[in-house]
Amino acid sequence: MAEHGSSACSHPSERKYKIALCQLFVSKNKLENIRHARELLEAAADGGAKLILLPEMWNCPYSNELFSLFAEEIDADDLSGSPSCGMLAEVSRSRKVTLVGGSIPERFGSHLYSTCCVFGSNGKLRARHRKVHLFDVDIPGQLTFKESATLTAGDELTIVDTDVGLLGIGICHDIRFPELAILCAERGADVICYLAAFEMNTGPLFWEVLQKARALDNQLYVATCSPARDLTINHAAWGHSTVVGPFGEILATTGHEEAVVFADIDYAYIREVRWRNCLSKML
Amino acid sequence: MAEHGSSACSHPSERKYKIALCQLFVSKNKLENIRHARELLEAAADGGAKLILLPEMWNCPYSNELFSLFAEEIDADDLSGSPSCGMLAEVSRSRKVTLVGGSIPERFGSHLYSTCCVFGSNGKLRARHRKVHLFDVDIPGQLTFKESATLTAGDELTIVDTDVGLLGIGICHDIRFPELAILCAERGADVICYLAAFEMNTGPLFWEVLQKARALDNQLYVATCSPARDLTINHAAWGHSTVVGPFGEILATTGHEEAVVFADIDYAYIREVRWRNCLSKML
Repeated sequence: MAEHGSSACSHPSERKYKIALCQLFVSKNKLENIRHARELLEAAADGGAKLILLPEMWNCPYSNELFSLFAEEIDADDLSGSPSCGMLAEVSRSRKVTLVGGSIPERFGSHLYSTCCVFGSNGKLRARHRKVHLFDVDIPGQLTFKESATLTAGDELTIVDTDVGLLGIGICHDIRFPELAILCAERGADVICYLAAFEMNTGPLFWEVLQKARALDNQLYVATCSPARDLTINHAAWGHSTVVGPFGEILATTGHEEAVVFADIDYAYIREVRWRNCLSKML
Repeated sequence: MAEHGSSACSHPSERKYKIALCQLFVSKNKLENIRHARELLEAAADGGAKLILLPEMWNCPYSNELFSLFAEEIDADDLSGSPSCGMLAEVSRSRKVTLVGGSIPERFGSHLYSTCCVFGSNGKLRARHRKVHLFDVDIPGQLTFKESATLTAGDELTIVDTDVGLLGIGICHDIRFPELAILCAERGADVICYLAAFEMNTGPLFWEVLQKARALDNQLYVATCSPARDLTINHAAWGHSTVVGPFGEILATTGHEEAVVFADIDYAYIREVRWRNCLSKML
């Protein structure tokens, strides 16, 4: 079990490890995005992180016109059709880290999904989460975006058992729905990872309170990862990738520039918070 | 229907009215508390409020030793055994306002409950909510309180149809549980009223984020009412009675002193927010 690193080998409830969020700048060149993501993932691993996140749509600018062009087929047994996932598999194996690989446009038959692939520290694809709640909005003069014009919604909850514990996965608009987080918590998740590209209207309104609420209500860690802001595209990201603790407290965050954000995760602290809070459910 | 006032008579989804929160100081003298609550309720009605809230345990200092001494039996057909509810019935009828009467210790057989009585604008008792989630906590050296030593937990959700719309009712620790708010929203509540005496540890940690989260997640108004702070008792209240709008925005709030807080409620705004947000549930 040496390959897991000492911190990840302890009893689940005593695990302590470092998490990192790669808030990266996404360009219009996919191969460049893959190269750049590898750079940030390796920097995060060099910094001691055992669990590393990429943001929503990290290999593709956030645009309905581009999702199809940047999409990849993801075959767990043969990743040669997915250069993005191939890189994630390589880095997770070589650096012995768990990767929550943001999301990329996934082609599956005639459908496109926004899909998060999770790789274990042995380089194997452990799970894929297809964004359940698509973001369709039309406020004349303010904000119009209709993901469902190109993407299909997933219909499954994703909780994945990894060397760093049980991780729940959500993508962006999924964070608006408390039920998803409640289900993750009821099934034992220690951390919920939300890969997100909240935009400039909803970011300042909701981003912080939603992260705190999901963590506080479910007494677990919430980790979010956004792209860095690019004001040359319509759907510029809010940034502010953040780790929130089980009391709803911000443990680490950043602004809107490119950054690797580190925080310490300690599952004994979850136990302590649950004991202090006594949130037994009575209804 | 003249007795309802023009603003409360419009179609439910177009209702606009003023709400008031009576953040009152609670003394050790019950009759004085009843007299003083009437004073604040009448001031709120004079200010134009059609829906008025009192805080948790407004007729009794927050102490396990006193709940039994201050308790009243509440018979909806004959309120002569409850001077606290008798006053609420009188004020609601004479001022034609809907009262969410905070909570008082209710004696029922051999049990004590923390009970909120809701009076319609005709002075009739419309509903009673018995606090579902009791607050039991024991953090040595920091905070010890065990409501269940004296109180019995209620086991029902309370949603009451009034002249000012469908109101969901929760008492203090009930706000920690997102499920109660989700159920109120699914059954059509326009406003959830939480009567609370959050204390000085949990207040600064949770109070604001919980109110915002319940409103934002369920796209409705949240109104909270606390006693004013009294540092001479063990369980001093945090105060900060607040009205939050369906975007999670604070519409009106206050500090920890005695105050009557007013805000405008507009159900057309809930419809607009729901349309803008498109929070259709997909899981």
